[in-house]
Amino acid sequence: MSDVNPVLAAADAGLEASIARWLDLLKIPSVSTDPAYAGECTRAGQWLTDMLNGLGFDASLRKTAGHPMVVAHYAGANAVSSRHVLFYGHYDVQPADPLEEWKTPPFEPSRQTGPDGMEQVYARGAADDKGQLMTFLEASRAWIDTTGDLPLKVTVLLEGEEESGSPSLEPFLKANKRELVSDVALVCDTNMWDAKTPAITTRLRGLLHDEVTVTGPSIDLHSGYYGGAAANPIRILSDIVSDIHDRNGRITIPGFYDGVKAVPKATREQWGKLKFSERKFLGEIGLKESAGERRFSILEQTWARPTAEVNGIYGGYTGVGTKTVIPSKASAKISFRLVGTQDPDKIRKAFRKFVKDRLPKGCSVAFSEASEGSPAIEISEHSEDLQSAAAALKQEFRKAPVMMGCGGSIPIVRSFKDLLGMDSLLVGFGLANDAIHSPNEKYDVNSFHKGIRSWIRIMDGLAR
Amino acid sequence: MSDVNPVLAAADAGLEASIARWLDLLKIPSVSTDPAYAGECTRAGQWLTDMLNGLGFDASLRKTAGHPMVVAHYAGANAVSSRHVLFYGHYDVQPADPLEEWKTPPFEPSRQTGPDGMEQVYARGAADDKGQLMTFLEASRAWIDTTGDLPLKVTVLLEGEEESGSPSLEPFLKANKRELVSDVALVCDTNMWDAKTPAITTRLRGLLHDEVTVTGPSIDLHSGYYGGAAANPIRILSDIVSDIHDRNGRITIPGFYDGVKAVPKATREQWGKLKFSERKFLGEIGLKESAGERRFSILEQTWARPTAEVNGIYGGYTGVGTKTVIPSKASAKISFRLVGTQDPDKIRKAFRKFVKDRLPKGCSVAFSEASEGSPAIEISEHSEDLQSAAAALKQEFRKAPVMMGCGGSIPIVRSFKDLLGMDSLLVGFGLANDAIHSPNEKYDVNSFHKGIRSWIRIMDGLAR
Repeated sequence: MSDVNPVLAAADAGLEASIARWLDLLKIPSVSTDPAYAGECTRAGQWLTDMLNGLGFDASLRKTAGHPMVVAHYAGANAVSSRHVLFYGHYDVQPADPLEEWKTPPFEPSRQTGPDGMEQVYARGAADDKGQLMTFLEASRAWIDTTGDLPLKVTVLLEGEEESGSPSLEPFLKANKRELVSDVALVCDTNMWDAKTPAITTRLRGLLHDEVTVTGPSIDLHSGYYGGAAANPIRILSDIVSDIHDRNGRITIPGFYDGVKAVPKATREQWGKLKFSERKFLGEIGLKESAGERRFSILEQTWARPTAEVNGIYGGYTGVGTKTVIPSKASAKISFRLVGTQDPDKIRKAFRKFVKDRLPKGCSVAFSEASEGSPAIEISEHSEDLQSAAAALKQEFRKAPVMMGCGGSIPIVRSFKDLLGMDSLLVGFGLANDAIHSPNEKYDVNSFHKGIRSWIRIMDGLAR
Repeated sequence: MSDVNPVLAAADAGLEASIARWLDLLKIPSVSTDPAYAGECTRAGQWLTDMLNGLGFDASLRKTAGHPMVVAHYAGANAVSSRHVLFYGHYDVQPADPLEEWKTPPFEPSRQTGPDGMEQVYARGAADDKGQLMTFLEASRAWIDTTGDLPLKVTVLLEGEEESGSPSLEPFLKANKRELVSDVALVCDTNMWDAKTPAITTRLRGLLHDEVTVTGPSIDLHSGYYGGAAANPIRILSDIVSDIHDRNGRITIPGFYDGVKAVPKATREQWGKLKFSERKFLGEIGLKESAGERRFSILEQTWARPTAEVNGIYGGYTGVGTKTVIPSKASAKISFRLVGTQDPDKIRKAFRKFVKDRLPKGCSVAFSEASEGSPAIEISEHSEDLQSAAAALKQEFRKAPVMMGCGGSIPIVRSFKDLLGMDSLLVGFGLANDAIHSPNEKYDVNSFHKGIRSWIRIMDGLAR
């Protein structure tokens, strides 16, 4: 029988004090992308370092070429477990612009009760990621305050450049590999399914970029004198782009689907039962029907199926008015979202062959320098750690967590895997309406409270 | 029996003096597009007015909102014919840039003998259009010097804004309609087939512009979170552009070919016999095969077949590097070259329906404001005036003129038709290698001489 109840009780009793600390952190405008706030970033890092040292961690603020990293260790001398987790969060925030759209100042956190009686804290970073990272730190505090210890060995890594491309992260992980390697990484930067339904993100799509430039005539031509005979690279490029998908939204590049696995039946059934209105999802972005592969739900299309998207296209005259030109060149920026074990290198090769196979004789194509693609990350739903975290979340919410996908990528997960050889467990307590990166960002006090309680249970579970 | 021989003899005898006058005109840098040369444009117009008055024309320089027009009448009191022709040319020239690429200064005409013994005059405007217009004026001089009269009534209209869009032309034609209307317009601004083969341009393609903007999502979306479900307007636009042509290069817009007539057999046979290397034509623009409609020669494709060309396309991120966006909008600038009796309004309507028919549910399209399209101009090869000019050219060159097409448009011909109700006869003596609009523009002395002799014969023929 777990002795987690007194720890949970301590967290409940200390909630107001926890909120007060969270609000203090929110008052520091640690905008990483703007050099004017460099001092504030360091101040936020120092604030967290001090707090962690106060809790009994061995914490320090480490210099990087950019904003500093907070690294803290808790040895857990009396811990019941020899297990070791690395908790990751980031203390930097997005810029607050446009300021005039904020109802309360972004760095003066405002605690408000909504019409439904639920409380929210409004501030830049309220959710992303200060609110989220504080759930873990306050859970640790409850453990230490109650038991004098943590139930397992914990290393905390808090980054200050997540919102500005994490330029210092990979060098730091490489240089401090031995200090950071643990059994599993806990990443708290994702959402719940809804306020009552927890979630674990198990699928992150991979990404591959390519840029295609088709050359037809050697120079721009007059469309009168040459039109009807000269190859138009815009037409060639459009033919290629149009050929990428068939009428059912399936990608036609040979071999593209190698490594794409069907979603396990149980997961698909779980997704099917979720309250998810495709109509509402599409309506919110001004659309009426999905453009994706037929036979798949939108959740499958965005979480578990690969894509090919043209992110940009340009060629010929694009200014105001008209110009009777047949351009020499036309270009498209294309990216692929990858799933399963799709191999970015193979797909790049297959795509480039697909393009070349469609070039008329005498025309040519150039591609951007091959940038490294990243394969998808899929965390096995059968892993013991994930099952343990799922059980803990179920106990807290009285509802099994949704095994969610994320259509985008979370680069830190790829870095932990590639540089430290570690799997990640993605558990977060955000909500889709938290307005992260937008004016009036908020985090629910309920999210914060449930987050603390959840981490208490998850730590307990992982320690066994 | 015509008494044209003494006139031709006078032209031959006066050739050096004619060339001297041509060179004098070339020394005036009448660049119409550059306000710094406004005075030079007026000077060129005045030079021509004075010359025409000296010949016995009633010539005057007429003010416009831009550069002045030269209008000159020769009543032909003793003329054998009551016929009246309007000769059109332009005294303005293209800018000379890039100056450093000229081998001799652009406004210091340089007469040179090539390795083949042929003489050329190098200068900006040598051909376009000062050399060409002078052929007609010097032909008139030979007539007047020899017979004291012209064989028919002649009005000369020389424009000073042809190279800058002719903004004053249409208002001037409208305001002076009664003074300018004649039986037929003679336009000297086109080419021969080659130095030994004269040509009459009988086909000018029409032109219709449209701009299509497809809207998919209401805002730009993250291609990770929405990719696979959200409609991508670049893909939709590419599908539409790709659908415009079938695999045989034929345009698939319903009704598009209404009014397109087959080239008369005799003309097609004439074109087939021309020394025209498709391989060389394509090779010069870096291509290996025609992109046009199968079953048609390149001369047919560019002279007698309609086209649909995308002149520009743009959407999404077009800067350096990558951006994971599904854009809200994508646009294409499309133009159609028209032939026969294709109706621009009908085609605009059919095209817009074609686009709308291909829009996924929930997506929308906007078109540019409808600009007026221009139908093609085809001058009947059976008209008496054309047959007469063809006979005159055949007599001079001992070779029948080629009935050429021009893939572009010559707006003055449309204006004469629409505003003055006149047909045009397009006879010119330029060569494809005259480098008009480019550095080192030239006109062959042979072109100049044959041009003068040809106009003498054509005037004689038209007067009958």
